[in-house]
Amino acid sequence: MEQNLLQADDAGRDPAELAAELARKKYPADIVEALNKLDVEEAAAVLAHLPFDRMVEVFDEPELNDPAGLMMALPEEQAKVVLSSLSADRATDIFQLLPGPVRARFLSLLDPETKTSIEKLLTYPANTAGSLMTTEFVSVPSSWSIEQTLQHIRQVERTRETVYAIYVLDPQKKTLLQVVTLRRLIAGEPQASILTAARNPITTTPLTDREDVARLISKYDLLAIPVVDDKGHVLGIVTVDDIIDAIVEEGTEDVQKFGGMAAIDEPYMQIGFGQMLYKRAGWLSVLFVSEMLTASAMQYFQSELEKAVVLTLFIPLIMSSGGNSGSQATSLLIRSLALRELRLGDWWRVVLRELPTGLTLGAILGVIGLIRITLWQKFGIFDYGVHWALVAATVAAALVGIVTFGSLSGSMLPFALKRLGFDPASASAPFVATLVDVTGLVIYFSVALVFLRGTLL
Amino acid sequence: MEQNLLQADDAGRDPAELAAELARKKYPADIVEALNKLDVEEAAAVLAHLPFDRMVEVFDEPELNDPAGLMMALPEEQAKVVLSSLSADRATDIFQLLPGPVRARFLSLLDPETKTSIEKLLTYPANTAGSLMTTEFVSVPSSWSIEQTLQHIRQVERTRETVYAIYVLDPQKKTLLQVVTLRRLIAGEPQASILTAARNPITTTPLTDREDVARLISKYDLLAIPVVDDKGHVLGIVTVDDIIDAIVEEGTEDVQKFGGMAAIDEPYMQIGFGQMLYKRAGWLSVLFVSEMLTASAMQYFQSELEKAVVLTLFIPLIMSSGGNSGSQATSLLIRSLALRELRLGDWWRVVLRELPTGLTLGAILGVIGLIRITLWQKFGIFDYGVHWALVAATVAAALVGIVTFGSLSGSMLPFALKRLGFDPASASAPFVATLVDVTGLVIYFSVALVFLRGTLL
Repeated sequence: MEQNLLQADDAGRDPAELAAELARKKYPADIVEALNKLDVEEAAAVLAHLPFDRMVEVFDEPELNDPAGLMMALPEEQAKVVLSSLSADRATDIFQLLPGPVRARFLSLLDPETKTSIEKLLTYPANTAGSLMTTEFVSVPSSWSIEQTLQHIRQVERTRETVYAIYVLDPQKKTLLQVVTLRRLIAGEPQASILTAARNPITTTPLTDREDVARLISKYDLLAIPVVDDKGHVLGIVTVDDIIDAIVEEGTEDVQKFGGMAAIDEPYMQIGFGQMLYKRAGWLSVLFVSEMLTASAMQYFQSELEKAVVLTLFIPLIMSSGGNSGSQATSLLIRSLALRELRLGDWWRVVLRELPTGLTLGAILGVIGLIRITLWQKFGIFDYGVHWALVAATVAAALVGIVTFGSLSGSMLPFALKRLGFDPASASAPFVATLVDVTGLVIYFSVALVFLRGTLL
Repeated sequence: MEQNLLQADDAGRDPAELAAELARKKYPADIVEALNKLDVEEAAAVLAHLPFDRMVEVFDEPELNDPAGLMMALPEEQAKVVLSSLSADRATDIFQLLPGPVRARFLSLLDPETKTSIEKLLTYPANTAGSLMTTEFVSVPSSWSIEQTLQHIRQVERTRETVYAIYVLDPQKKTLLQVVTLRRLIAGEPQASILTAARNPITTTPLTDREDVARLISKYDLLAIPVVDDKGHVLGIVTVDDIIDAIVEEGTEDVQKFGGMAAIDEPYMQIGFGQMLYKRAGWLSVLFVSEMLTASAMQYFQSELEKAVVLTLFIPLIMSSGGNSGSQATSLLIRSLALRELRLGDWWRVVLRELPTGLTLGAILGVIGLIRITLWQKFGIFDYGVHWALVAATVAAALVGIVTFGSLSGSMLPFALKRLGFDPASASAPFVATLVDVTGLVIYFSVALVFLRGTLL
């Protein structure tokens, strides 16, 4: 298969020779894959030997590592021509990665039209439709016929990111009226008006979050979605391949955030040591400081602890069960909210489901715990003292309470975060565990006080 | 906007009236959204009043809830015609959801050609290219001209899932030679051979996992990928809209598995109570039983615990720090492996990164811990005894050890699972926490034995 051709390690090879070999590859993605294995100096040397149109194709691939570094390593004249030849959305992505002074310098090199278009795109915040969109789309006036439109597409095809959706504009006001797909155009009568093959467009706005853009594209099975301003002018289009990259990135962010760290947008081996520490130490320290409340809770129950050291044996077991059930519930609800299966107002339905679920799960673990303590006691593996049956009952009852509390708070945390205006995906597993740990200890010792008063306590 | 038109609650409305209103909607996705809010009987009643082609469009949407239930609620004759009119991949999805006897009955109603095609598709395992693909694609012999091909597309356009990629076959052997995109076709010379606009295809095989299919489509920016058998015949194609749904589902599965539960492929509010318990209780019980090792570890150190109850105060704090750092590392590595940024053989590079990272993170938490204990002692908030400084040193040193161990084992767990042939995404946060908890306790008490021997112990 094409994508497996390059298996040897290309580091240290002659750049001209390697470039000649890569230039023969059919797909730019395969050239990118090979370049990504080299360090930036080597990759730049190889790039410089590639034919010009291949070089542009390589920079057009979002999978290329460190495109800004590679662009800066090119001779200035070459960088200028490449930047002018890239699709506008991709050029903007690369400009965003360039250091301030270099960015200004490169911008000044471009022709006025490209410069304006990129400066405009640079103003949209990251992860919005505006930052993802390209300005290279096909639009025609509504007065045209199907044949005229096809003729136009033949002329501009090379310079457009997609020609599969054609936007039909009001001839005077230039506002978006309709959209035509290329397949309908092909199937239509050549002499008929373009409007005979058109339908109402699904649109989005430049500040819409990329997750919502992805939802529209996926819901309506679109190949591209037009981004319109409040007057109805098309600013650009977001294409399905850009949105796939965005969905994959969102998935990675969700998993990383759920793991209890700040999201990282570079591959694991590329991120610097300092950056890695920064992304991890923040949350870890916050969680550590919050978790110190467990020490305070334990200190509060110190006299009980000293009287009944046997209780401490089950602290890790009980606490982890609360954290685990909370983590399950959170993972379920984060995605349900992210996929808009549930809305904020549905929180009480979730409570009505999590309450019986938590009680049942807690009862299951409680029974397993009872059996474990009884077996160990009966077979003489460990002696939990004369009141072992009461200790077992304490553990079982505490498990029911803690698992129920874990399921409830784990499921409500994403709702609470969303209500407060945060991303529900910030509800990480460690966050939930910390929340549940302190309460879990209090539940455990309270149950113990009820069950063991007059015997151990 | 189109998608917000339906805001009122449609439950309990007259089916014929609601159907008439829905039939006027431009996009089937909007009809589906409205139907999904009704229960299955109501939805079926509304469906029965929809025009036939709208009914087919509705069943063609993967977002439709309980399509099998709705299909069974239709009169048999109607169900037969709908099933024959659906795209083959969608009909197969619905057949897969039908109970065995109904499936056989419905299959027997279909015309032989459709029946064979669906029976074939039903044999591919879930989540493979074979199970996602449709058999409705455009293929032409390599002897045709561009004009001939366009003429053919015009005729078959209505019955094909996509016409944007056209597969060029060997006229005799019917094997796949090349692929042509519709845009190249439009731009080409009408009289020229189809081969002048063609390029080598990127292909996949029927048993390829959908994640790998998604990676190919995303890497090469494809709108569809042909699925070929080992002789080179095209069995079907997987289109980009099917793969977006698959990527979103994979993202949900990854988060749910990472949360420590079996993946659920239905929305939260649709899954039955028993099913929900089943998906959650399994892992929860396994983790609970594993976590019992912490009780065993505590029992082993019981005499130390009784001599120095002050040590128990920090058990939850120390254990959770190990779990949290492990969870971070696991979330990072799961995605890196899933996105193929790292291969199995790269494990040692990860160790070389996680070792210094873990040591530094542990030192940061250790210092915070030292400060906390010192402050509480100095300001008289809590008395940790005469040897408080040694206790603080024990906690700090244990934190360095445990966070390092957590980062290392959290990062290695996905590699280990992958090596053993499991999905690296099975390395859930609770799984890592459990793994780290037992070792964490052993590290803590071992450090205590070194630091406190001759004083507290």
